[in-house]
Formats: sequence, C-alpha cells, structure tokens
Amino acid sequence: MSDTVAADQDGASAGGRRGRGASGGAAARRAARTGGGPGTQLTYIKRQINSFEVLNEEGLALIERNADTVLEEIGIEFRDDAEALAMWKEAGADVKGERVHFPRGLCRSLLKTAPSQFTQHARNPERSVQIGGKATVFAPVYGPPFVRDLEGNRRYATIEDFRNFVKLAYLAPSIHHSGGTVCEPVDVPVNKRHLDMVHAHMTLSDKPFMGSVTAPERAEDTVAMAKILFGEKFVDENTVIINLINANSPMVFDETMLGAAKVYARNNQACIITPFILAGAMSPVTVAGTLTQVLAEVLAGASFTQLVRPGAPVLFGTFASSISMQSGAPTFGTPEPSLVSYGAAQLARRLGLPFRTGGSLCASKIPDAQAAYESANTLNSTLLAGTNFVLHAAGWLEGGLASCYEKFMMDVDQLGMAQKLAEGVDLSENGQAMDAIRQVGPGSHYLGCDHTQANFQTAFYRSSIADNNSYEQWLAEGEKTAPQRANELARRWLESYEAPALDQGIADGLNDFIAVKKESMPDAFT
Amino acid sequence: MSDTVAADQDGASAGGRRGRGASGGAAARRAARTGGGPGTQLTYIKRQINSFEVLNEEGLALIERNADTVLEEIGIEFRDDAEALAMWKEAGADVKGERVHFPRGLCRSLLKTAPSQFTQHARNPERSVQIGGKATVFAPVYGPPFVRDLEGNRRYATIEDFRNFVKLAYLAPSIHHSGGTVCEPVDVPVNKRHLDMVHAHMTLSDKPFMGSVTAPERAEDTVAMAKILFGEKFVDENTVIINLINANSPMVFDETMLGAAKVYARNNQACIITPFILAGAMSPVTVAGTLTQVLAEVLAGASFTQLVRPGAPVLFGTFASSISMQSGAPTFGTPEPSLVSYGAAQLARRLGLPFRTGGSLCASKIPDAQAAYESANTLNSTLLAGTNFVLHAAGWLEGGLASCYEKFMMDVDQLGMAQKLAEGVDLSENGQAMDAIRQVGPGSHYLGCDHTQANFQTAFYRSSIADNNSYEQWLAEGEKTAPQRANELARRWLESYEAPALDQGIADGLNDFIAVKKESMPDAFT
Repeated sequence: MSDTVAADQDGASAGGRRGRGASGGAAARRAARTGGGPGTQLTYIKRQINSFEVLNEEGLALIERNADTVLEEIGIEFRDDAEALAMWKEAGADVKGERVHFPRGLCRSLLKTAPSQFTQHARNPERSVQIGGKATVFAPVYGPPFVRDLEGNRRYATIEDFRNFVKLAYLAPSIHHSGGTVCEPVDVPVNKRHLDMVHAHMTLSDKPFMGSVTAPERAEDTVAMAKILFGEKFVDENTVIINLINANSPMVFDETMLGAAKVYARNNQACIITPFILAGAMSPVTVAGTLTQVLAEVLAGASFTQLVRPGAPVLFGTFASSISMQSGAPTFGTPEPSLVSYGAAQLARRLGLPFRTGGSLCASKIPDAQAAYESANTLNSTLLAGTNFVLHAAGWLEGGLASCYEKFMMDVDQLGMAQKLAEGVDLSENGQAMDAIRQVGPGSHYLGCDHTQANFQTAFYRSSIADNNSYEQWLAEGEKTAPQRANELARRWLESYEAPALDQGIADGLNDFIAVKKESMPDAFT
Repeated sequence: MSDTVAADQDGASAGGRRGRGASGGAAARRAARTGGGPGTQLTYIKRQINSFEVLNEEGLALIERNADTVLEEIGIEFRDDAEALAMWKEAGADVKGERVHFPRGLCRSLLKTAPSQFTQHARNPERSVQIGGKATVFAPVYGPPFVRDLEGNRRYATIEDFRNFVKLAYLAPSIHHSGGTVCEPVDVPVNKRHLDMVHAHMTLSDKPFMGSVTAPERAEDTVAMAKILFGEKFVDENTVIINLINANSPMVFDETMLGAAKVYARNNQACIITPFILAGAMSPVTVAGTLTQVLAEVLAGASFTQLVRPGAPVLFGTFASSISMQSGAPTFGTPEPSLVSYGAAQLARRLGLPFRTGGSLCASKIPDAQAAYESANTLNSTLLAGTNFVLHAAGWLEGGLASCYEKFMMDVDQLGMAQKLAEGVDLSENGQAMDAIRQVGPGSHYLGCDHTQANFQTAFYRSSIADNNSYEQWLAEGEKTAPQRANELARRWLESYEAPALDQGIADGLNDFIAVKKESMPDAFT
C-alpha cells in the first residue's frame, strides 16, 4: 500500500490516472451500442449567470445583527462533548454547562481561516470538482431508508439498490458527484454499513463522494479508506471527502455530529454544516426568523471546524423546508423555503463560505405532477440562488423517505437543463446570428438555413425524458407517462453500466481493509 | 344604453359597483358551505422581489443595435394592408412593396407616447388590474381547440367547456384575469363564436378579459359589447380590453392581426404585440439571435399602434419556445426559452413597455411529471423575469393544443405559490421573530410558541393540491395522484360556482346585441 501512496505524490491519484479515459470511453462505447446511453459527462457547472437575491444590504445587516444577538444572548448547545466545550472556552466563548455564548464577532473572526473555495478531488482528476465561487456541483439524494423500485414497489432499500444509484449517478452526465447515503442499505448491519457504502462509491464510480458521519469511528474508517484510494500524503494535503454535519436545530449540535466533524476537520476534509430546518417546528414560521437562526447555527458550527483545524474546508449549509400548519407534515417546493435558500446563499457569500442548499425536493409519494412541481420549484431556486453544492439533486421522493429510480432519471434530465441555463446567453457572433436573420428574412423559416445547420448538434437542450411528439404519435406509442419513459431509461443505463478501471492493488487494499474491519465487529442492526 | 353610460361617468362601471361585494361574498359563503371552496380572491401581484437578469448593459446594447440593424436593413413586412403601409410612409419609413425599412430610432421615438403602465378596468373595480411596473397579472390558457376533460377524455372543446374555464378562473384566487380564448368552442359557428366567448367573460366573471382578434369586425363587436358593459364614455376614456396581436414571425405582420390592432388601438384598448416564436423555426437557434428578432418585431408592431393612436396602451410580448432538432416539434420548459424570457423582459423595461411572456407551458399530453416540470420551469422564469402579464398561466397542456381541467387546478395552486414568493421577505419585527427564538431556545420546538400561534393563519403557503401526509395515510386514502385530487377540486369548485351579480339592463343589452348580430350572419364553421 505504501508503494501506491508513493506513486501518487504528484497530485493525481493512481486510480484516477489509470481510470481516466478508460471509464468514460468504455461506457460511452457501450452506450452507443445499446442505443440508450447517457451521453457525454459534463464537468461541474461554472455559472455564467447572476445569482438571484431577495435581501438588500439593510436586510442582510439586520439578519446578521440578529444572529449575533442569538449567539451572544441565547447561545448554542454543544451536547455531550467536553472536548468541544473546552475548545470554545479556550477560544474565548462564555460556556455555561453545555451552552456556549459567543462574544460578537468571535465566530466570524474564526472563520477567516476557512477557504472560500476549494477542490474536492476525485480519483479521476477529470471528475474533481470545485466547491465554492461560481461553481455548482450536483450530488444525488441522501438518506432514504426506502426505495421506489423499477417494479413499482415501495420497500426497504438494500445494498443492491445503493450500488444501482451509485452506478446511475456515475453514468448521469449532469451529476458531478457520487454523493453519500444514496439510500440506506438496511440489509447490511448498521455498524458495517458505512464500509460497503464508501466502497461502492470508491469502486463503482470515479466521481467525488461523501463520507460516513454516523459515528466518529466510521468517519475514521472513511478517511482510512480514502488513504488507500488516494494515497496517504495526498489525503493529508488535499480534500477528497465532503461530509454532511447537521445541526440539531434549534441551536444544538450533538455528540455524533461533533465527533464526525472533528475527525474530518482534523484530516482537512470538508464539512457541510447544515441546520436541518422544518420551519415552524425547528425554526420560527417566518423567513427572516429562520434565516437568523440558520446563520447563528452555521456561524457556531462552521467556526468550530476552524478551532479543530484552521483552514479546514467548511460549507454554509441550509436544508430548508416548512411544515403544514394543519398536520405538522413537512412540505416542499413551497415559496418560503425558496426565499430561505435565496437569503441564506446571500449570507453565505457575505461570510465567504461555499453554500449548500436545495436539490429536487418533494413531499409526493409517487413521481407524479406534485413531485415534479415541487422538485422544479426547489431546483430553480437552488440554481438561481448560486448554490455551490446541491445534495438531493436527483432521486428524492416522499420527503426524503424514499429514493426513487424513476424520479432519479427525471431529475437528472432537469439537472441537464439547469446546467444549460447556467451557461447564460452566448453573445458571440455565432450567438448573435445576424447572418441567419439576414439569410432567412421575412416570412421564411430557419429550419434549413446555414446557421441552423452549423449549430444543429448544440442548439437547444435535448431532454432524455420529455415526449414532444404529436398526440397521435404519443397514442400510437402506448400513451406512456414520463415515469414510464424514465423507468425504461434507468433499465437501459443499468444494463450499459461498466465500472471505471481501478488499480488492482488499490482494489485489494480496500477489500482487505473492509474484511479486517468487519471481522472485528459483531453484526448490529440497530 | 346611453342612460347607463351617463350613470357611470365617475370612473367605476355600473356592473362593477353593483357587482362588488355581492360576487365574492356569495361565492365565499357557498364555498364555505360546500367545504371545497377556492378561498379569498387575491388582487394582482405587486412584486416586492427583484427581477432576475441574464444580460448586462453591454449585452443589452448589442442586441438593441442588432435589432435596429434588422429594422433598417432587412425590414418588416406589413402584409395586405395598404393603410398600414401608407401610415409608415407618412411616418418617415422607407416602404418598398410590403417591406417597411425603419430609420434607426424611428420606432423608439414613436413609442415615447406609449404608457409604461396602465389600468385595465374590470366591471368589478376590485378586480381591475395594473399592467406594467411592479405588477404581475395571471390569466388562463389561450387558444386550445381541444380539452382534456374531467372524465379523462381528450376531445374538441365546446362552449360549455369555455364557460367552465371562465367559471374556474373567476373562482381561482390567484388568477387575476378572465383571459380570452380559454378554449376554442368549436360547437359554435366560427363567425359567431367571439360573441359567445366575450359574453361569457362579461357575465360569468367580473375579472378583466381579452377581446377577439380573429377579424377586425369581431374586434369591433368586442368594443361594442364593452361599451354596453362599461358605458360608452368609460370605454372611450379607459382601457377595458387587452388583446393578443401576434407577429407572424419571422418579421411579418398580417392583415388579420393588423386589422384587429387598428380597431383596438383606435379605441384606446391594449394590444400585446407578441412575436410567436418556436426558436429554430421562426427565429435563429440562439438566444441572442431570437432576442434580436423579437425586439425588432415588437419595435415595429408596438410603434405601429402609436401611429394609429398615440398613447394607446401596448405591451412588449414574447412567446418563447424552441423546437426539437430531431422532429421539429415544439418543446417547453427547457433552458433556452427561459433565457429568452429573462432577456426580453430586460429589453422591455429599457423600452418602457409592460411585458408579457411565459405561463405554465408544457409539451406533455397528460398532466404528469413532464407537464409539471416543464410548467414549473416556465412559471419560475416568467415570475422572476418580472413579467407583467402572464397568459397561459393555468390549464395549458400539449403544446397549447388542449385545455386541461386538472392541469388548470394544479397550475392555480402553483400561481398561489408564485404570488407568495413575489411578496419577498418580511423584515418587520414579527418577521424577524426574535421573541420566538428567545422563547424557544436550544433543543425545544416552535410548534406551540406564542409567535407560531399568532402567525398560524398566515404562516406558509397552503397548497390546495399537494398531499404532504405520511405514506401510510396516503395509501389508506386511496393512493391518489395529484391530477386525481385536482379533478375532485375542479368538480367541487364548479359545483360551488355562483355568477357575480350583473345589472339587468346591461345583461339585456348584451343579449340583444348578440341576438341582432347573430341573426345578421349565416352559420360558418370554417
């Protein structure tokens, strides 16, 4: 293993260099043969468009002042973690029991060491992503214990489902990241699950991925496996894992998340500090109140990573939903969470941190019109907010309780559209198309003109899901719904899947590590 | 009739004053009884949020220069209308045959007399709408010859369907306008159709409406009926009809549309000059090229209304779609039309004209996920572009070939969300919610706190369509899809419908006018 490490010190990983070319090329050839392939992989989005802003300077300053008041007067609880409390005391905070009160400006001051953007390396360097700045990275759904499968059943997720979603995310051109818990493989013991999950991301995909956060030792295992994949020195000097650290809103960070955050920050790996908010339950029922609490929680959690290791990459995360005032059930795709996303993105930019929110969120139990309206509303605000890292970008159903294959494929199509939109307006001479207007003139059409011919391949986003044919043709082809077409596409993609090449020494190293680890643990299912 | 006119000279219409209160109140009471009512009517949107912009000053100036070049070098055809050509010659344009070449600056100069915003009066003054500025007005689908009905059939539309959509738009809180050809009532002779359509808008709704544009004499009939409804003097002095004048892109205005435009402009009624664009067919395959042609066409068509009557209200309209490069079929909800909408809105603001685009457009044949994704994408860009008048805001299916009841109800729900989003972030003391954050503190929840209780009724948009319940409850309630819930809602609304009160003299006047007109014409079905 140390040989592998040594070979990788030039900054690109062994797996990456060997995987490059072989992976995309083989998949593309196979896809071409089967006729239903996903097409060319896109790199992460470099936004050419503005961000949409809902708060002016006055509003932003007001919310920042209020958040400072929350931090100072009310404070944030760091639970069951004496080390964290001691670190805060040392840093100058006023610690009373588990409640930490922050002098005004302390958190912002600590955050000066956090990078405003960084690279998360993938084993295939072509798939490495920028996190922050004008970059937007799409990652799949995270966390559901259930799946809605290709046979139309809703059932507990398995490791096979997990691997399928990793494969689909690997194939999807507009998904730039392999994500993390794409579904919970509940057929694997809970204490061993993270090993199989991280292994799947590392071996079935060459895109960047997320680490385990459900216990500090699982975070340690993730880092150890990353060192096998990338080489120890490379991991010490670079960010190769990004990790979801949720606040326990309102105003609490718990032992589990703090433990994982400490492991990753110490190893220079990225933490996404995310207040998980169902507004009305975990935050006030107003947008400004929610933004205030979110900012306070992020300031506390993100600056904590800088106490652990100054310079460790950290994101301003926001998971914004609201609840039904009748039933208390979470709702998605409604206007208030969109306003929260827009506002939080502005606060993050002022703070100089990369921003995570949104995705393709919905409450619907099936991939129907409700699911699509809600997901599109969420994705539109996510994109225009200028979000840097988009978890749950594809496959999310049922308020995050189910990963859905059909929804995944439909969302991937929408992500491709979002990526095209983010390119903005081409004002080049070709974009201006004055020659075309001159050639065609009044009363004619552009279908066959030179400019149209020259731009045939790149003109207009081509949907993989939409049926734009006539009603009669649609009837003749079996009156298929969008999810039915998505189902067929998912099957074709899975059939066309070929794993990206991986160095045999690395593959063996990972297998050995997992075997040893698993043998040391009893099976645990709770 | 002249008595009615005399009684109305204080600026509010007879029907309006008498209708006010009686209409909304009765419907609301009836709705409360049946338990499925649409809720309180909303006035048109006064946007508190910014507009999203995709072009900078340089890009805008470039497109404006290019449009001026199109107008000067290539010109615009005004077909089969000698009067229009004579007017252009008189105005200083270079007319060669039917091709009009415009000296740089002529159209802009003429447009200085066009109002940047105006009021379209409804017979119920509470339903009058502002067109332009920070106002956004939602109007239903326009034009489909087919309906997808509540029994799930796709068939030719009838006058009963037409009346149903007028009723639903009247009841829908987030639809501010009765629209025009909500579907084509193909069971009524084509030469008499406009009379029944305008009559339905005038009698079944008290919201503002659109006039007939399919022949100059039908436009004249619309104006005559408006004079019966509002009084002659009121119509002379105010705008009570808004009308869709499509360019025959590329770069042609035809006799029919010019004829209708002349009638309405002469009567001080509003024209929406709209290049109807399927990019790739009627315009170049690029966004900037399409924007250039759209601007040129609007400059020519809108300034023509000012030749007819300086000061006549006129809108910068854009219907933006693109085509599938494989089949030539129109596509909707894709990124390029969104970019066109954003850019065209900016061009309209610089020109000082109210702007129309977008809606809830889709290509899907059924109200499925494709329909919803596409509609939501279109509506999001329509709203954030800062669009003033939104035709096709609800009910559009199948590329505009079918008006769909279920889609109508789902879209209305989305329009309510858009309206809420447009209110922006409440930064009042109540909005800031610091008392709530203080009261709740770390680790508790906001469900029962004073601030939540005080804001219970207004907190969060409440969807009329979404099912946010648990999977188990959704199963127990019959696994309904969003369109199924929309179907039930449409039936309940139609059952609860009561016509707004209308002065008997006016009602008789309209009936008499139509009877005399119809008697003078043979039935014509083509």
